[in-house]
Amino acid sequence: MPSANGTNAPQKPGGWGTIPTSDVARRTFNPIRDILTRPVRPLASPQSSKDLLSLSIGDPTVFGNFKAHPVVAKAVEEAVSSYRFNGYPPSVGLPHVREAIARKYTHPDAPLAANDVVMTSGCSGAVEMAISVLCGSGKNILLPRPGFCLYNTIASSHNVEARLYNLVAEQNWEADIDHMESLIDENTGAILINNPSNPCGSNYTKAHLKAILAVCERNKVPLISDEIYADMVFSGQTFTSTAWLTSTVPILTLSGLAKQWLVPGWRIGWILIHDRANALESVRQGLIALSTLINGPCALVQAAIPKIFAEVPSSYLGDLNCQLESNARILETEINKIPGLSVITPQGAMYIMVKIDLDSFADIENDADFCHKLKWEESVEILPGECFSYPGTVRLVITPPPNILCAATARIASFCQRHSK
Amino acid sequence: MPSANGTNAPQKPGGWGTIPTSDVARRTFNPIRDILTRPVRPLASPQSSKDLLSLSIGDPTVFGNFKAHPVVAKAVEEAVSSYRFNGYPPSVGLPHVREAIARKYTHPDAPLAANDVVMTSGCSGAVEMAISVLCGSGKNILLPRPGFCLYNTIASSHNVEARLYNLVAEQNWEADIDHMESLIDENTGAILINNPSNPCGSNYTKAHLKAILAVCERNKVPLISDEIYADMVFSGQTFTSTAWLTSTVPILTLSGLAKQWLVPGWRIGWILIHDRANALESVRQGLIALSTLINGPCALVQAAIPKIFAEVPSSYLGDLNCQLESNARILETEINKIPGLSVITPQGAMYIMVKIDLDSFADIENDADFCHKLKWEESVEILPGECFSYPGTVRLVITPPPNILCAATARIASFCQRHSK
Repeated sequence: MPSANGTNAPQKPGGWGTIPTSDVARRTFNPIRDILTRPVRPLASPQSSKDLLSLSIGDPTVFGNFKAHPVVAKAVEEAVSSYRFNGYPPSVGLPHVREAIARKYTHPDAPLAANDVVMTSGCSGAVEMAISVLCGSGKNILLPRPGFCLYNTIASSHNVEARLYNLVAEQNWEADIDHMESLIDENTGAILINNPSNPCGSNYTKAHLKAILAVCERNKVPLISDEIYADMVFSGQTFTSTAWLTSTVPILTLSGLAKQWLVPGWRIGWILIHDRANALESVRQGLIALSTLINGPCALVQAAIPKIFAEVPSSYLGDLNCQLESNARILETEINKIPGLSVITPQGAMYIMVKIDLDSFADIENDADFCHKLKWEESVEILPGECFSYPGTVRLVITPPPNILCAATARIASFCQRHSK
Repeated sequence: MPSANGTNAPQKPGGWGTIPTSDVARRTFNPIRDILTRPVRPLASPQSSKDLLSLSIGDPTVFGNFKAHPVVAKAVEEAVSSYRFNGYPPSVGLPHVREAIARKYTHPDAPLAANDVVMTSGCSGAVEMAISVLCGSGKNILLPRPGFCLYNTIASSHNVEARLYNLVAEQNWEADIDHMESLIDENTGAILINNPSNPCGSNYTKAHLKAILAVCERNKVPLISDEIYADMVFSGQTFTSTAWLTSTVPILTLSGLAKQWLVPGWRIGWILIHDRANALESVRQGLIALSTLINGPCALVQAAIPKIFAEVPSSYLGDLNCQLESNARILETEINKIPGLSVITPQGAMYIMVKIDLDSFADIENDADFCHKLKWEESVEILPGECFSYPGTVRLVITPPPNILCAATARIASFCQRHSK
C-alpha cells in the first residue's frame, strides 16, 4: 500500500518504528564500500560492454595465477581427517600452533615464546584486537596517510581518534618523522606502521624503522607493526621486522597466512607480543580477555600452520616475489607511457600507486571521478587514493596475470587519451 | 636483579612503565576464568591422584564419543581441494552459503532469504554482533539469570548494562515475565533469550515463547534469540524457533555449526534477520558494517555448509539426541541418590543443573567452594552456578560417555558423604 507521501515506503506492522542501530555500528564506516557504490554520472547503462578487469581488491587468488602451494591444502586436509581439531581451541590459539609461530618468527634480537603469540580471525582481527587493547575510548592512534582504510574504520568503530601522519611519496613513502611526532599527546595509545605497505608498495630501510622506533622511545608510545606483507619484497630489497631493531620499544607485530600463503579467505592471523621492556603485562592480559569474545579463529586452519611452515619450500616465496615483481614492472612500464600518469616505483607487497596529473585531463575532477569514469567506460576497476586518505592518486593491484595487466593498461591508455586536454 | 622490595619484579629497561590496557579490554571479563583459577584452600598439592574427569566445558568433542558425521569432514575436504574458497569471502558470507542457510531455516510463518543471513565467527561472534548492533554505549540489555556468562562478558565489554531477568527453576526455567518487563526502560536495546538453554537444559513451550514475544511487542523492544541448541531436545519435546510465533516482533536468531554438528572449533555461526515489521533496516546496515571489521569467518568451512545440510542424514540428529537424553538420565538418576543434591530435569541441550542444599553439608560454604573442593579431592571438574549468576547450583555437561558419567557421580557421592553434616 503506498504511503501518504506517495512513495512505496513499507508498512510498519504493529506500530514498530525503525529501530536505530547502535553508535558503534554507525561509527563502523568502510570508505571503500562508500566510494565504490557512489552513483556515477551519467546514470545510464554502462558504456562499455567489455569484461570487467578488476585491479581493485588485494586478493591474489582471484585470477588463478597465484595459487596456494599444495602443502597448504594438504595440511588442512590432514587436520580435518584427524578429527583432532573439531573441539574448541583455547581462545588465544592452539598451544602447538603458537609454539610453531613463535619458532618461525623468533630472532636473536627479538626472541619469542609460544605465550607471545595470540591467534586472531585474520590479520583484520589482529588489527582490531591491537587497536582495541591499546586504545580505548577517548584515546588517539597515529595512522599512516596513505594507509589501509580498515585502520580508520576500526579506530572509528572503537571511538578512537585517528591522527594521520604523512608518508612522503618522493622519499620512498617514508614517514615524515617530525609530522608523526607532532601528533603525539598524552592520549596517544599507539603508533601504527605498515611495512611493506598497502597501498604504497614500499619497504622501509633499517635506518627509517629506527627513526620511527626513536619516536616511540622518546614519547613512550608502543608500536603496532602490521607486517602482513613480511618478506614480500623485490630484488635488491631486504625485509626487516621492526622488532629486530629495538631492545626496549613494546611492539605488537601483526601478520597472518593471507598474503604470503595465498589464502586470505581462511581468516587466520596473529599478534606477536614483543615486550622486552616488560611494559605489556596489562596489555597481554587484555589481549587474552579480548580473545574470549569470539574464541579465536578456525581450529582446522590453525592446526595446518606447523606443517605449512615446515614443508612449503623456501623457493616458493622466491618464485612468488619474482612473479609479483615482474607484474609490477609491466604495470610500471606501461603506465609510465601514458601522459598524465606516473608510477611511484614499488619495492614489495602487491600494489602500485599512480599519481594523476589532473591538469593533463579535460574533464576529470579528482581521483574518485577518474576511477568511476574508467570503470564506466572501460570496465577497469581500480581504487582512488581517496580510499587511502590520499587523493590525487590511484592504487592498482599487481596480482592479475600479465595478459590482464596489459589489457587493463591498454584500456587505461585509451581512456586517458580520450579525456586528455 | 631483585628490586628494592625484595621481590623479583622485572626490570623496566629504558624507563618504560607498565602500559595500561584499554577500558574495553578491562571491561572484558570472563567469570568462568576468574572462578576456576581462584586459589583453593588448603594451598597444598591436590589430595587426589585420580585422573581428571571434566564435566565443565560445553564441548561435546572432548571424549571422542560424540563425533561429527563423516559428511561434515568430507564437505570441508572438498572445499579445500577445489581451491575455490581460498580468496576473501564477502564480509557477510558467501552468497550460496547464505542462500543454503536461508533455505534450511525458512518457515511458512517466518520466511527467510539469503540477504537475511549474516555469517559470523562462531555463535560467539553472532552474540557479539547482535549485542553490538542493537545496544550501544549507555544502553541496557535484558539477559537470563541463570544464563551463559559470555552474554555478560560481551555486554560489559561494549559498555552495555546487563539487566538480569529471573528464570524460575520450579517452572521449567521459564522467565519471570513480570520481572522481565519491570526491567525495561527507554534505554533497553534488546531482550535476549537462550532456548534450549545453557545452563538450564530447558526447552520452552510455544505459550511461554509467546508470552516473551508479548513483552517485546508491548514495549517495542527487539528480541535476540540464541538458538545454538535448536532441535537438540529430548523425547516428548518439540523445539520451536521463536520467530515462527510472531508476525511483528523483530528478531535476530543466532545459531551455528558448533553443537548440533559437533564442530565447535570450526568457529562458524550466523545471524538470521527476522524483520517482518520492516523495523530493522538500520540494524541490517549496521550488521553489514560490523561484519567488515574482521571480514567474516573461514571461507572453507562456510563452503562446507550446503553439503552438510543436504547430506547429513536426519537420523543423525535423532541418534545424537537419544544419546544425550540417555546420558542426562544416567546423571539425573545417580545424582538424585546423593543426599543434599537434586537435579532439575533437563529437556534438551547438553547440560543439567543441580541444586545444592548447603544445610546438608558440614563445611561447604557455597557452590564455588563445592566445585573447588570437589576438584581438589576427587579430580572432578564441574562449574558453579556463580558462573551463570545463579549461586546455590552447579552445572554438569552431559556429553561425556556413560562410564565417565558413572565414575564422576560415584566420586561426587563419596565427596558429598565425606562433607555431610
